[in-house]
This record gives sequence, structure tokens and C-alpha cells, in this order.
Amino acid sequence: MTLLDTLDLPDGPVALHRAAAADLPELVALLADDVLGREREAADLAPYARALEAIDRDPAHLLLAARDGHGDLVATAQLTLLPSLSRGGAMRLQIEAVRVAGRTRGGGLGTALMTWALDWGREHGASLAQLTTDRSREDAHRFYDRLGFTPSHLGFKLTL
Amino acid sequence: MTLLDTLDLPDGPVALHRAAAADLPELVALLADDVLGREREAADLAPYARALEAIDRDPAHLLLAARDGHGDLVATAQLTLLPSLSRGGAMRLQIEAVRVAGRTRGGGLGTALMTWALDWGREHGASLAQLTTDRSREDAHRFYDRLGFTPSHLGFKLTL
Repeated sequence: MTLLDTLDLPDGPVALHRAAAADLPELVALLADDVLGREREAADLAPYARALEAIDRDPAHLLLAARDGHGDLVATAQLTLLPSLSRGGAMRLQIEAVRVAGRTRGGGLGTALMTWALDWGREHGASLAQLTTDRSREDAHRFYDRLGFTPSHLGFKLTL
Repeated sequence: MTLLDTLDLPDGPVALHRAAAADLPELVALLADDVLGREREAADLAPYARALEAIDRDPAHLLLAARDGHGDLVATAQLTLLPSLSRGGAMRLQIEAVRVAGRTRGGGLGTALMTWALDWGREHGASLAQLTTDRSREDAHRFYDRLGFTPSHLGFKLTL
């Protein structure tokens, strides 16, 4: 675990770490504690460990683990710097798998985490942030709208 | 230019290359020859050259340049292998900046290019392909629908 920053929130400080193997059980539990995630996530940690190794191997990725003052995992997000030719050769900040623990929602953690993520992208040369959320996640749509995102695109997925 | 494969199409073979610096002027012209692209792309090639270097530096990316029998650039797409924890530690195939030259549309090139891209993703361990398209691109929506993609998500963007 590498401490990256501390978010000062009304309910107390939240420490932002670069996620490590020791975080995996809690990270997977957080991904699974979700109306869509509970159908998608599995009990076997081995594939998650392989994914974390692939994420760690490439400095273009940063997987965040946010812990409260009790040391409990309260949020995560995966950030990726994605170079692209289009839009004038824009570096994109791709954001995946944003989750905030249900018990801590409404306290500003999601907004603080995303604000930190957007700043991280800017510092690394990104000029466009992008993410997709399931069409059924109406709370998330309002959340990203408040952060200044525009739902300008349709997100297509295909299982390979 | 590295030849990756040849697509056999009714109008003749199309060679798929890994894009190189020599392709840049035509690649940028193809990105700009588009109802949205003409407002977003620039005449100065320097930022595109920097973006191509960043793409080339990371083996997670493959920028495709497709050329017809006359050697003309007729299509491009950027493929990225994106490891992620969610969905059981799924490797994602992220697809960006798909463009087919207007004069060659309808001849099956787009479908052949995307089919090749999805196969490339599978061969590299991806279990989910994802892309976004502007909500105004209704032809593209039908195209991805025919390929088996589902428009299950909203794509949010934010200029940094």
C-alpha cells in the first residue's frame, strides 16, 4: 500500500492508497456489494489477483483504495491514462469501476474521490475524462452530471 | 508499418498494418473527414506524433491503419487491452476512434475490421469489448448493434 493523499471530509479523513494485493478481499467485496456487481463478481480471488498484477505492471493505470480512519475500505476507482490520436491527439483519463461503500454515501466521499481523480488526470496530461455507467444507474447519472460530465455518448459492450 | 493481416473483401484485399509515423497525415485526415471530427482535429501534426509515440510505447495499445490495393488509407481503429478488477477481473478490449473512409463504406470493411479487432481482443485474453459513440451517430449505433454490441451504458465525458 502506497499512501497517495488524504481526503479531508466532514466525517473524518480518508486515506487514498495505490491498491495492493492485501486490499483484494475488501476490494472485491465492495465491487460485489452492488445491485449489478452481485451478479458479476466471484468468490475465487485468483482472477482478481491476476488482474491486479496486470494493472500494477503498467504505469498507465492507478487502482485506488480509499480507507477511513478505522482502516475500512470505503471507496475504489480505477484510473487509466489512455493516449489517443483523436481530438487533437488528446490524452484521455479513462475511469472504471468507481464504487463508494453504501454506508458512507452522501458524505462527500464520492465527489472528493472523483475530484482527486480528475486532478490526477490533469497532472498527467489528460485533457478529457471519460467513463460509462449502466443506463439503470440513475443516481450515478445525477452524480456525474453534478461533477460536470456530459452524457454525450452511448456505451456499447459485447461479451467476447 | 508492420503488416498484421489482410482482409479479403468483395472490392479487393485490405492490408491491416500497425500504424507508424508515416501514416499520420492520412490518419489525421481520416479523423478530420467526419461530421464531428472536422471541429475537433487540427492541422498541426506535432500533438498527433506525440500521441502516436505514447501509443507505440505501451504494448497494451494497437493503432490500426487499413490500406486498400492502391495503398490508400481506408480505415483506422485504436485497440487497447484494459485490465480491470470488476466483472471477475475481466480483461477489457477498449475500442476508440473507429473510422472508415466514406467512399469505402457499405463494402463490408467496417464489419471486417471490427471482427478482426474482436478476434485480436479474444486472442489477448479479453472477455469484454467496449466502446462509446456519440449519441448523434445513429448509423454507428445500428452498425454496433448488428455486430452484437448492446448499448447498455451511458458514456460521460468531461473536458479537463
